Amino acid sequence: MATIENVLSAIDAEQTPALDRLLEFLKIPSISAVPAHFPDCERAADWLTAELNAIGFEASKQPTDGRPVVVAHIKAAHRDAPHVLFYGHYDVQPPDPLNLWRTPPFEPTLEDGPNGSRIVARGASDDKGQLMTFVEACRAFVKLGGPPCGITILFEGEEEVGSASLPAFLANNVNALKADVALVCDTGMWSYGVPAITTSLRGLVGEEIVLAGASRDLHSGIYGGVAINPIHVLARIIADLRDEKGAITLPGFYDGVEELPEKLAEQWRDLDFDAAGFLKAVGLTTPAGEKDRTPLEQLWSRPTCDVNGIVGGYTGQGMKTVLPARASAKFSFRLVGKQNPERISQAFRKFVTARLPPDVKAEFIGYQGNGAITLPVNNEVVRRSARALEEEWGKPTALMGCGASIPIVGSFKKELGMDTLLVGFAYEDDQIHSPNEKYELSSFFKGARSWARILSALAA
Amino acid sequence: MATIENVLSAIDAEQTPALDRLLEFLKIPSISAVPAHFPDCERAADWLTAELNAIGFEASKQPTDGRPVVVAHIKAAHRDAPHVLFYGHYDVQPPDPLNLWRTPPFEPTLEDGPNGSRIVARGASDDKGQLMTFVEACRAFVKLGGPPCGITILFEGEEEVGSASLPAFLANNVNALKADVALVCDTGMWSYGVPAITTSLRGLVGEEIVLAGASRDLHSGIYGGVAINPIHVLARIIADLRDEKGAITLPGFYDGVEELPEKLAEQWRDLDFDAAGFLKAVGLTTPAGEKDRTPLEQLWSRPTCDVNGIVGGYTGQGMKTVLPARASAKFSFRLVGKQNPERISQAFRKFVTARLPPDVKAEFIGYQGNGAITLPVNNEVVRRSARALEEEWGKPTALMGCGASIPIVGSFKKELGMDTLLVGFAYEDDQIHSPNEKYELSSFFKGARSWARILSALAA
Repeated sequence: MATIENVLSAIDAEQTPALDRLLEFLKIPSISAVPAHFPDCERAADWLTAELNAIGFEASKQPTDGRPVVVAHIKAAHRDAPHVLFYGHYDVQPPDPLNLWRTPPFEPTLEDGPNGSRIVARGASDDKGQLMTFVEACRAFVKLGGPPCGITILFEGEEEVGSASLPAFLANNVNALKADVALVCDTGMWSYGVPAITTSLRGLVGEEIVLAGASRDLHSGIYGGVAINPIHVLARIIADLRDEKGAITLPGFYDGVEELPEKLAEQWRDLDFDAAGFLKAVGLTTPAGEKDRTPLEQLWSRPTCDVNGIVGGYTGQGMKTVLPARASAKFSFRLVGKQNPERISQAFRKFVTARLPPDVKAEFIGYQGNGAITLPVNNEVVRRSARALEEEWGKPTALMGCGASIPIVGSFKKELGMDTLLVGFAYEDDQIHSPNEKYELSSFFKGARSWARILSALAA
Repeated sequence: MATIENVLSAIDAEQTPALDRLLEFLKIPSISAVPAHFPDCERAADWLTAELNAIGFEASKQPTDGRPVVVAHIKAAHRDAPHVLFYGHYDVQPPDPLNLWRTPPFEPTLEDGPNGSRIVARGASDDKGQLMTFVEACRAFVKLGGPPCGITILFEGEEEVGSASLPAFLANNVNALKADVALVCDTGMWSYGVPAITTSLRGLVGEEIVLAGASRDLHSGIYGGVAINPIHVLARIIADLRDEKGAITLPGFYDGVEELPEKLAEQWRDLDFDAAGFLKAVGLTTPAGEKDRTPLEQLWSRPTCDVNGIVGGYTGQGMKTVLPARASAKFSFRLVGKQNPERISQAFRKFVTARLPPDVKAEFIGYQGNGAITLPVNNEVVRRSARALEEEWGKPTALMGCGASIPIVGSFKKELGMDTLLVGFAYEDDQIHSPNEKYELSSFFKGARSWARILSALAA
């Protein structure tokens, strides 16, 4: 088997054709949200299938109820090597608003930026550029005799619209997809030139309540003072959910929330997070969460309860003296540790029901929940990958949390019993989902080298 | 001058032609909200002008910035008689939804009901039938030698759309319109066959607040826990406005709120208000206002603070994990006694401002306020009118409060320095503003007789 130095040299030697391939891939407007672009999604899947077969994978496009997935397999150069499943998505967000793009979104362009050359196109960062870092690493390994790990690749085409077909596909293809660990390249660097592994994701529970009082909207003069107003009831419930220190008052809410291990707390402190800059970018100055927690804890390791939407009564121009018959709100809970989505839903519904005065009824609408994901930071996969990344970038790897959910990670755990390693080379300013999306050329080239180092390290 | 008995007989003798006149008037679709019907509004004003001139008034249609008003004068039969200003409106609400009408809204129809014959048409009760009770009383007086009071009549055509042109018209015509008292026939009976005078109206202040936090909507995963959520702030403000007993916590809110005089309290108790039935009709069972007040107090003599509308974040189908940048709510305060609208506005804005956390700004939008109106119940006009009504209906006159505002009453006080006597013959089931609006034939005939008695009593 080739040395890692040979593999890295092979990757470097392929920079020009590798970039050409990515630019070709980026020209396909594989927008999963727009039915007129469904044929382009097929084209993107076909393009990937052909690329992977050309490299030496056994690749095929496979149908789902929605857009197709691409599945590819290749054996390791040696027996008894570990097996990995790499996941990415070939679909992209719609490019609107088009008029804000400096160059056409599906005519990828190289542009000079403060950190060197970069590729501007829809999908450059999310996720075509990222997934191609892995494909290029595989190409170099195969050219030199085969990869150090067995590799299964799974590319889906519905990530930007909720991955509706994926859980069933996983469940129906457990044997074909099962591996020792899943690798996902859809996250980012900690800061410029500082690599990162994302080791925790918060979970999510959604609940909507519709409160109904009188049988119709009432005149606030004729009924005001005697008729119940569901907006008041809703406001009281929302206010009651939070105490003066910003903690959530739902009974049992913090069951399963663990204190941050001291080692991780220390690492997070070392990250030297610029909370002021993070807030300033969106017009804020003051962390608004639990008062006794640092901003990174508030974002990564503490649960939340937020109202995402509220509506009731008259919301047009001017005044209308109406006592509304109904009022509703949508709540989301971000979960951490071992918080149980089902129990949070139940506690919330009980909390609301206990606060309903006579004549007010609540209808509950639940949205699928998923628990938090934590990869132990002293896990062997994390340790080896962190060291591999440090070797490539010359800086210690940041072990980050993430406040959001990546549902595929939960699906890998649930359907395939696998943990996921989240590594990516995107930056906060990549403008994903926005006009002028970009991917640093250094992310692309050093990303491929990073995967080569990680695959070697996992097999060592 | 004719005796009241002669006048009442003259009214009775005119029942058939009086009804024909009302039906003719009801055929004019004088819908002030719909520009296509502006010519019909002109026709209605012309029709009234011609009627009043035919009776013997000096009547004219006069332009405003909106629909015209009709002004008519007639002198009293004797010198030194009091002078009254009678107000009504010839415009009507749109008849939609048309498919719910049993008969076409502008083809007035006589129908049998549980309380005898009734007239079904848009405007039958609000306000064409009511204003014609007064016109028919005037006709009988003139036929028999002249009315006992000097009379000015003012009919407007924009009541259903906010009377925008009226305050300026009053201010510009003070000398032509000034009288000893204003009479308004736009209210109702207490219950079937029980006459009523409305002696108090609550005032109204409207306030809208728009709370703004971050400079844009944020992802609740990426920012949740650290970024302020304006919906939470708004909910806290709304919840804080009310204590456990249902009282409003705004400092100074109850300044100027007077305890109900024992005499009036006793009369209200005697009214034997069916609170359960009132609530049941709109699907409720339990009075929701201040716990230590009776339902009639809650409705007529206690102030309120209600949220009439609220909106923020995502309000469509399903979930969107957004932390909204803004949230807003519309508030209305119903005022009583001597509560000062301006001070209530100021106290509210101060209350809100004091509850804004860092990074949240409030924008305030004020809507014109008017104070409560109270006619002293031992006032001579009220006493004489109550007795006159009792003579006609054979039952003691109920002295009612009204929880809503009738802005014209405030304008008469402010622009012309006059108190207003509110007498009307409508019933709660008249379906005003709804399909199948009706007016009891007994309301029309005995209404005319009632005004004859009141005018006689005021001049006695």
